[in-house]
Amino acid sequence: MVAPELMPDLAPQTQNPHAGDPVFDLHVGGKMEISSRVALSGPEELSMAYTPGVARVCQAIAEDASLADDYTWVPNTVAVVTDGTAVLGLGDIGPRAAMPVMEGKAVLFKQFGGVDAVPICLDTVDVDEIVETVVRLAPSFGGINLEDISAPRCFEIEERLKQRLDIPVFHDDQHGTAVVVLAALENALRLTGRLMETTRVVVSGAGAAGVAVTKILLAAGITDVVVTDRTGVLHSGREGLNDSKAALAQLTADRTGRTGSFAEALDGADVFIGLSGGTVAEELVATMADDAIVFGLANPTPEVHPDVAHRHARIVATGRSDFPNQINNVLAFPGIFRGAFDARATAITEGMKLAAADALAALVADEAREDLIIPSPFDPRVGPAVAAAVAAAARNDGVARR
Amino acid sequence: MVAPELMPDLAPQTQNPHAGDPVFDLHVGGKMEISSRVALSGPEELSMAYTPGVARVCQAIAEDASLADDYTWVPNTVAVVTDGTAVLGLGDIGPRAAMPVMEGKAVLFKQFGGVDAVPICLDTVDVDEIVETVVRLAPSFGGINLEDISAPRCFEIEERLKQRLDIPVFHDDQHGTAVVVLAALENALRLTGRLMETTRVVVSGAGAAGVAVTKILLAAGITDVVVTDRTGVLHSGREGLNDSKAALAQLTADRTGRTGSFAEALDGADVFIGLSGGTVAEELVATMADDAIVFGLANPTPEVHPDVAHRHARIVATGRSDFPNQINNVLAFPGIFRGAFDARATAITEGMKLAAADALAALVADEAREDLIIPSPFDPRVGPAVAAAVAAAARNDGVARR
Repeated sequence: MVAPELMPDLAPQTQNPHAGDPVFDLHVGGKMEISSRVALSGPEELSMAYTPGVARVCQAIAEDASLADDYTWVPNTVAVVTDGTAVLGLGDIGPRAAMPVMEGKAVLFKQFGGVDAVPICLDTVDVDEIVETVVRLAPSFGGINLEDISAPRCFEIEERLKQRLDIPVFHDDQHGTAVVVLAALENALRLTGRLMETTRVVVSGAGAAGVAVTKILLAAGITDVVVTDRTGVLHSGREGLNDSKAALAQLTADRTGRTGSFAEALDGADVFIGLSGGTVAEELVATMADDAIVFGLANPTPEVHPDVAHRHARIVATGRSDFPNQINNVLAFPGIFRGAFDARATAITEGMKLAAADALAALVADEAREDLIIPSPFDPRVGPAVAAAVAAAARNDGVARR
Repeated sequence: MVAPELMPDLAPQTQNPHAGDPVFDLHVGGKMEISSRVALSGPEELSMAYTPGVARVCQAIAEDASLADDYTWVPNTVAVVTDGTAVLGLGDIGPRAAMPVMEGKAVLFKQFGGVDAVPICLDTVDVDEIVETVVRLAPSFGGINLEDISAPRCFEIEERLKQRLDIPVFHDDQHGTAVVVLAALENALRLTGRLMETTRVVVSGAGAAGVAVTKILLAAGITDVVVTDRTGVLHSGREGLNDSKAALAQLTADRTGRTGSFAEALDGADVFIGLSGGTVAEELVATMADDAIVFGLANPTPEVHPDVAHRHARIVATGRSDFPNQINNVLAFPGIFRGAFDARATAITEGMKLAAADALAALVADEAREDLIIPSPFDPRVGPAVAAAVAAAARNDGVARR
């Protein structure tokens, strides 16, 4: 219990123009705080939780590092790390302005995963500096959740951190999105009687989410997928592809020999997954296959408005909470870290991500309908189901420490 | 509210030999957690605390950085930063083993100061790397509390961070100790009818605490103070002094011309302040002035046991909770950061530290006795009194932003 006279004065600045706006009012003083798990009501407890008692716990960990798992908050704590370069759809707004998103993430981690998350907004955009900083922070955390770091830097940062650290490193904009998209797609394919192997997919957007979604689709058995950017289909015949796009081309269009414009790609496609923003013209959507599946995931404006999409597609999903089939990362990341932490996983493997997607899809598989291909974030089964599947996969993949 | 099935499994490892030990049992799962300050009971709240609503708050901060003070947890949040090189009396036990102390600190920050504190245990002992890392972390925090970093590295780290950052930077082992020692000494001098200007002080120990205590005593008006190490009095005639000790010699013994051994220094001294560990022989304590003041602050074993000290001294203090007059940093750091944060201070000045000491001393000045020269950490007036004095001093010193 904190005495009232020690509470911070949260009154906003008098010249603040946002007072009275419900969203801003909700944010006054921030959305999170530290709480104590031990009661310090007198000198005896103080001498146990702090000096001199705590010294014995420190000494024990110094002699056996594994005891940090038992006697610190570290194994349940994730750093939510950003440099503020790709925040929501706002772009590069810097580390200070990114904080409300990171606090929101921390709140979701706790509510939907029982995970303690600490926002770390870094005052550098240099890849080497970000990597070194996170490596130095690592003893304080049981996992690293990278967030809102712009592509292609995010790929290198994640890759290097995975190599350097023996705790889970997870770029949510990539893998959280990928897991939820795959879960929704599994149910959508089942409803429309399709198989992974014979489904033709167009992914619009070669950023963090586009790359990760494409890779998880390939891992799940989709073989005919193309990725498009503003110029059209990514394929190795195109000039000027950066390293990330060139690698993606080899994994996708090069396998089927597809080339051409976005319109050509969409013509006859079974599935459209929008991860790019912008708008897809209705006449293009109309060229898709029968029983088409359209995921327009840009926020707040989907690439295809659901009303438009429904005129040509059988199953429609967006990132928004005010339409059915909300594809929202919050379905994935809290349970993924809960499961990884429960298993004391040293990494988050492809198998763990696929297991998370399968578990999510399974929750509504029996009752799946065109407007129910993915559970609600407020379905209380989500976190525990994802966590259990992820922990089991961690053990199966040999990365679990318990 | 976190669902029970999402709570981490806190069961210690089965082979853990410490189960059943009350101190270890208190530490199971760590001593702290993250709590949400907003309720997310449905999609509407989710869309305010997270996407899409949060985007407007981020955008507003991007346009006016001062709004981060109103709408994030940053202005009430301190990073407790260590490299694990000088943890309690245990020495260099590394960042992982240091965590229980840092968590304890965080718990005390909250309970006694209403401050949210995040433990950051760094996997580097390089001064440049520590400085750069903390600078990069700074957007996430309203202040930096350095902790248990060995001398003399701690001096350079603190100094460089103060120059680089516009938020409070405070090395508690130095300044927290110094504030509480000065507060206790103020009442001890009053009780024994002494004046700062004519009191002769011996500080044993030239580490972080010794340096800071000496400097605050000088700032408070003590003029005759010597610092001793294992070789004796620090003075410029001695060979082989490192930079830190050489600077200290100039501020202390060089002013009075004192030299010689520890025993010579203690002979006739009014005040002994032990910050070094080890034991002072009773026959040396016996040579001190009448109505001597003995602070043996090493933990858990004071330099002079109180039973011994009382045979020769009028006022005795230790760092222990099981003797009267406990000189404990927890009396200072929570209120100092509470006050600094309340004033949105950009630094912690000498004036703020002196004000904190005066406020602490004043709390028991009227009722002061030989065994009551400093309040208890559980006196509920402590945090608010220190905070108010520190905030006022910040405004007086021109470092307050409100």
